[in-house]
Amino acid sequence: MIETNPNEIVIVKSETSKIGSVDFDNLIFGRVFTDHMFVCDYEDGKWQTPQIMPYQAMTIEPSARVFHYGQAVFEGMKAYKDDDGRIFLFRPDQNFNRINKSAARLAIPEFRKDFFFEGLEKLLKLDSDWIKPGVGNSMYIRPFVIATEPAISASPAMSYRFMIILSPAKAYYNEPVRVLFAEKYSRSADGGVGFAKAAGNYAAQFYPTSLAQKKGFQQIIWTDANTHEYLEEAGTMNIFFRVNDTLITAPNNDRILDGVTRKSVISLAKDLGIECEVRRVSVKEIKAAAIDGSLKEIFGAGTAAVISPVSAFEHAEEVYELEQLDNSYASLFKEKLMNIQHNISEDPHGWRYEVK
Amino acid sequence: MIETNPNEIVIVKSETSKIGSVDFDNLIFGRVFTDHMFVCDYEDGKWQTPQIMPYQAMTIEPSARVFHYGQAVFEGMKAYKDDDGRIFLFRPDQNFNRINKSAARLAIPEFRKDFFFEGLEKLLKLDSDWIKPGVGNSMYIRPFVIATEPAISASPAMSYRFMIILSPAKAYYNEPVRVLFAEKYSRSADGGVGFAKAAGNYAAQFYPTSLAQKKGFQQIIWTDANTHEYLEEAGTMNIFFRVNDTLITAPNNDRILDGVTRKSVISLAKDLGIECEVRRVSVKEIKAAAIDGSLKEIFGAGTAAVISPVSAFEHAEEVYELEQLDNSYASLFKEKLMNIQHNISEDPHGWRYEVK
Repeated sequence: MIETNPNEIVIVKSETSKIGSVDFDNLIFGRVFTDHMFVCDYEDGKWQTPQIMPYQAMTIEPSARVFHYGQAVFEGMKAYKDDDGRIFLFRPDQNFNRINKSAARLAIPEFRKDFFFEGLEKLLKLDSDWIKPGVGNSMYIRPFVIATEPAISASPAMSYRFMIILSPAKAYYNEPVRVLFAEKYSRSADGGVGFAKAAGNYAAQFYPTSLAQKKGFQQIIWTDANTHEYLEEAGTMNIFFRVNDTLITAPNNDRILDGVTRKSVISLAKDLGIECEVRRVSVKEIKAAAIDGSLKEIFGAGTAAVISPVSAFEHAEEVYELEQLDNSYASLFKEKLMNIQHNISEDPHGWRYEVK
Repeated sequence: MIETNPNEIVIVKSETSKIGSVDFDNLIFGRVFTDHMFVCDYEDGKWQTPQIMPYQAMTIEPSARVFHYGQAVFEGMKAYKDDDGRIFLFRPDQNFNRINKSAARLAIPEFRKDFFFEGLEKLLKLDSDWIKPGVGNSMYIRPFVIATEPAISASPAMSYRFMIILSPAKAYYNEPVRVLFAEKYSRSADGGVGFAKAAGNYAAQFYPTSLAQKKGFQQIIWTDANTHEYLEEAGTMNIFFRVNDTLITAPNNDRILDGVTRKSVISLAKDLGIECEVRRVSVKEIKAAAIDGSLKEIFGAGTAAVISPVSAFEHAEEVYELEQLDNSYASLFKEKLMNIQHNISEDPHGWRYEVK
C-alpha cells in the first residue's frame, strides 16, 4: 500500500505486523524493531525523497564507505505514551541539532529538519501500538546516517543513507552499576571526535569495557587521555558526583558528549535548589571524598539509562563501595525526569514535544 | 557453478566477467572491483565455512552493529604480477598479524590464518586476469571485518563477516603532496585505537583533511594530541624526514600504525648504509631544519601510495617549500620496493610471497 503525501514522504505500509510475537514484559535492549523504518538517501548533492517502509534488511555494496572508514553518526532518543494514548518526545530539537553537529565533524552532510521531524512523527504514529504506556516503558528511537558510496578511497563519501529505526524498551540498567575509573585506556583525544556521536567512538570502548567486566565492573568512567587525572564521562552516559549535597559534573569539551539528560539534570538541580558545579572533577578528589564519607552518590545520566546509580568504583586496584541512600539524588532526578517524559507532572521548561 | 574443495572453501564462480568494461589505463583508486569476493561469517562462536562468490551487494540488517558503533577493522595489501605471469604478495604475514591485532583491540574475534591465506590465494588466482603486469600496476586487496549482529546494544557483537575484495590499482598519488602539520585536530589518543586499522580512525580525519584541502594541502601530518609538538603519521601513510643524509621517523606507539612499508623502508635504509633514527621528531626541529637548509626531504610510506614525496608543509600559517631532488631517498626507496614487489630484483629479506 503506497501513499504519497503532500510533504513529500512516501509511505509504504507493512501488510502484516510482528507485534503479536513480541513479549513486551521481557524486552532485551535494542533487539526488537517495529514494523516500519524511515529511510532517506543523499545523492547528487541533496537529500532525496524520504520513505517510510516496512522494516527490513537492506542491500548495500561491500565497498560502502561505512564498512571501511566508519563514516557514520547516530542519535538516541525516546518516545513515551501517557495513559490517554498521547505520544511525547523529550527535547527532540537537542537530538536533531546534535546529529548535525556530529555529522559536520565526520564530514557528513547535515540532514533536513523538516524531513527529520515529519519522518519521525509519521513513523511513530504508524507504529503507535508498539509504544506502551506506563512509566519505565518507552520507544527507543535510533536515527543514524551511514556513508553508502561504493568506493574505498579514504575521503568523504558522495552518498549517504539517513535512517530511523524504533525499538521498544524497558529501563536500560535495572541494577546499580559498578564502575572502573580508566587508568590506561582512553575514549577520545583533544581535537578528536569524542563530543560527537560518531560510530567509531563506541567500538573503541568495547575491549577496555570487556576487561572491566571480567573484573566485575559493568562500565568504565573515562578520564582525560593526557593525565588520567580527571573524570569525564561513561561512554554511554555522562556522570555526576554528589559530594555532601553538591552535585559535580565535568564541563563539555571536544572529548565529552553534550548529553541531553545531563543538561536536563543540571536544570532540574537549579529548580530544586541543589547546588551543581560544572567543572573538572579529579580522581583524587573523588577518592578523598569516598574515604572521608562526603561522597554520597555517583550516577550516570543518559537517554538509554535515564539515571543509573553507581554502587562502587575501582581505581588503582582499590574498590570504594558506596552506600545506597533511600532519598538519593539519583532516584529524585529519575522520578522528576520520567514524570515529565510521561506527561505526569508539569513541564516548566517546555521539554515535552507532543507527536500529533 | 559450485565447487567444494577439500580445504573447506566453497567456490561459486561468476557466469560472466566485467573485465572487458574496465579501462585499466584510467583507474580511479578503489572504485572498480573484480568478479569475485571472499566471505566468511562468524556465528555460534566460530568462523563458518568460507565462500568465494561473485562480487555483489549484500543484504544486511539496519540494526547491524557496524552501522551504529563502528565495530570494524580492515587491512590494505597489494598483489603484483611479473612479466611471466607469476603473482606475488608483499609480506602478507604482516597484514594477517595486524588485522588480528586490530581486531583484538576492537573486541572482534581473530580470523583463522588458514582461511585467510587459502581464501586470498584462491581469490587472486580466480581473478588473475585482473592483475596487470608492469611496475606501477597492482591489485589492491582489502580484507575487512564488520560486526553484523542485528542488535543495537553498545557491546561487542556475537556475529561478524570477514570479507576480501579486490580493486585493480595504479599508483595512488602521482604528484608530490603538500601537507599541513596538525595544530588543533588530533587523530588518536594515548590508550586509544590509533595503532589499529579501526574503521572509525579514518572518518575522524575527513573533516580536518577537508579543511586542509581548502587551504591547498592534500594531507595532514598528525601530531601528538597532548602537545601538538611531535610529528606522528599521515593517516594513510607513515612519515619520514631526511635531515642532511639521515632519515628520521617516529617510533610506534599506541597512536601510530605499525606500517609494513614503514618497516620495510627502515630495513632497506640499513641495507643501503643510510642512517635511520627511529625517535620522536619535533615540529620545532623540522622547521629549524627547513630554515637552515638541512631538511632535504619528507615522504610518506604506505601500501596504497608506496612512497609519496612531500613538496611543502605548513605550520603556524607559515609554508615551507621543499626543493625536489633528482636523487631523492623517496625515489630510491620507491624503486627498491617496487622492484622487490614486482620480482625484478633480488629479495634478500624474503618479503615476496608467491601465490601458486
